[in-house]
Amino acid sequence: MYFITFEGCDGSGKTTQVSLLTNHLQSRGLKCVTTKEPGGTPLAQEIRSLLLKSEIKDPITEFALLSAARRDHITNLIQPSLVQGITVICDRFFDSSLVYQGLKKGLDLDFMFDIHKKVVGALEPSLTFLLDLAPEIIIERLQRSANREINHYDAQPVSFHKSIREGFLLLAEKFSSRIVVINADQPIENIAKEIFEKFSMLTKT
Amino acid sequence: MYFITFEGCDGSGKTTQVSLLTNHLQSRGLKCVTTKEPGGTPLAQEIRSLLLKSEIKDPITEFALLSAARRDHITNLIQPSLVQGITVICDRFFDSSLVYQGLKKGLDLDFMFDIHKKVVGALEPSLTFLLDLAPEIIIERLQRSANREINHYDAQPVSFHKSIREGFLLLAEKFSSRIVVINADQPIENIAKEIFEKFSMLTKT
Repeated sequence: MYFITFEGCDGSGKTTQVSLLTNHLQSRGLKCVTTKEPGGTPLAQEIRSLLLKSEIKDPITEFALLSAARRDHITNLIQPSLVQGITVICDRFFDSSLVYQGLKKGLDLDFMFDIHKKVVGALEPSLTFLLDLAPEIIIERLQRSANREINHYDAQPVSFHKSIREGFLLLAEKFSSRIVVINADQPIENIAKEIFEKFSMLTKT
Repeated sequence: MYFITFEGCDGSGKTTQVSLLTNHLQSRGLKCVTTKEPGGTPLAQEIRSLLLKSEIKDPITEFALLSAARRDHITNLIQPSLVQGITVICDRFFDSSLVYQGLKKGLDLDFMFDIHKKVVGALEPSLTFLLDLAPEIIIERLQRSANREINHYDAQPVSFHKSIREGFLLLAEKFSSRIVVINADQPIENIAKEIFEKFSMLTKT
């Protein structure tokens, strides 16, 4: 079993691809559970509501809340699933914190790794798909999708999405053995096919 | 201005003594604000509700949430008050975490100090009053007080309150220059008088 995460800006198509990969693996007889961050457990979902309700100005407070949610998620859903041989496919994980609270809001990455290791633990994704998309397309997509959960990130200008993208690409460079960059400006099926192929390479190693 | 905390079991009379000390200091022209943990700010109050709703089994998750609440409380209420020359009188602070999540639930104290220092910061109370009371009296008082906020600690047996008391006394021994142990099994006015005297000694140093 594997712990697979999807990363990228809101609007990059993560939810769709999480669902397509899950269906694909289940059709091949692999037991899968899909989940997302922040969230995934009742407590983490309540922390998610707190975080989305209004922007927390202080990134350390925000990161401490995210770490509490992440620990609850790992303790009560991710780890127990993996132990039972179930593959976990998760929409966002620690990389999102590194980008939003770290590279974007200025928290020191070494500080974040230290707190993460102590509070959340050592579990790392087997593979991370970064859905990469130009900020202009992101904004267009966010404006088009009416039935999304609206949050305070939606009101951000192009420059915000640009720096988030750059943050994710920086991480992809730093953790190139784990993070696979996927061009998300392609037809959905092509993206899915690329993801299925990369996943099958993982299972062959 | 000073940062004064009150510690002790639920039912030890902290709320009453916080209020009496505040009135006493205000009547002497000192600007004071009273507050409590977890809580004190809108976000920390919401975290308090999460913590009291159901017991979080994992002490690290609980401590991470408490640390997020404490950081928000310090950043948005305690520190700004102190900067304006206002004395802060707080019902519970980090010592409560050290006792409940540390000595009682087994978190390593060095681990807790490390996370606290990194997430919350270096601010320490000028003086801490520990209201010390025998567990049998605590339980009797909790059963009598009908208009309290009920939480999952209320259903605990004598042995629980006994170990919490021992935890606080251990801290008082360890931090004897900051923590003053007050015998809380006395008439309210006598306890208040003892607290006023100890406080006035602080202002003379």
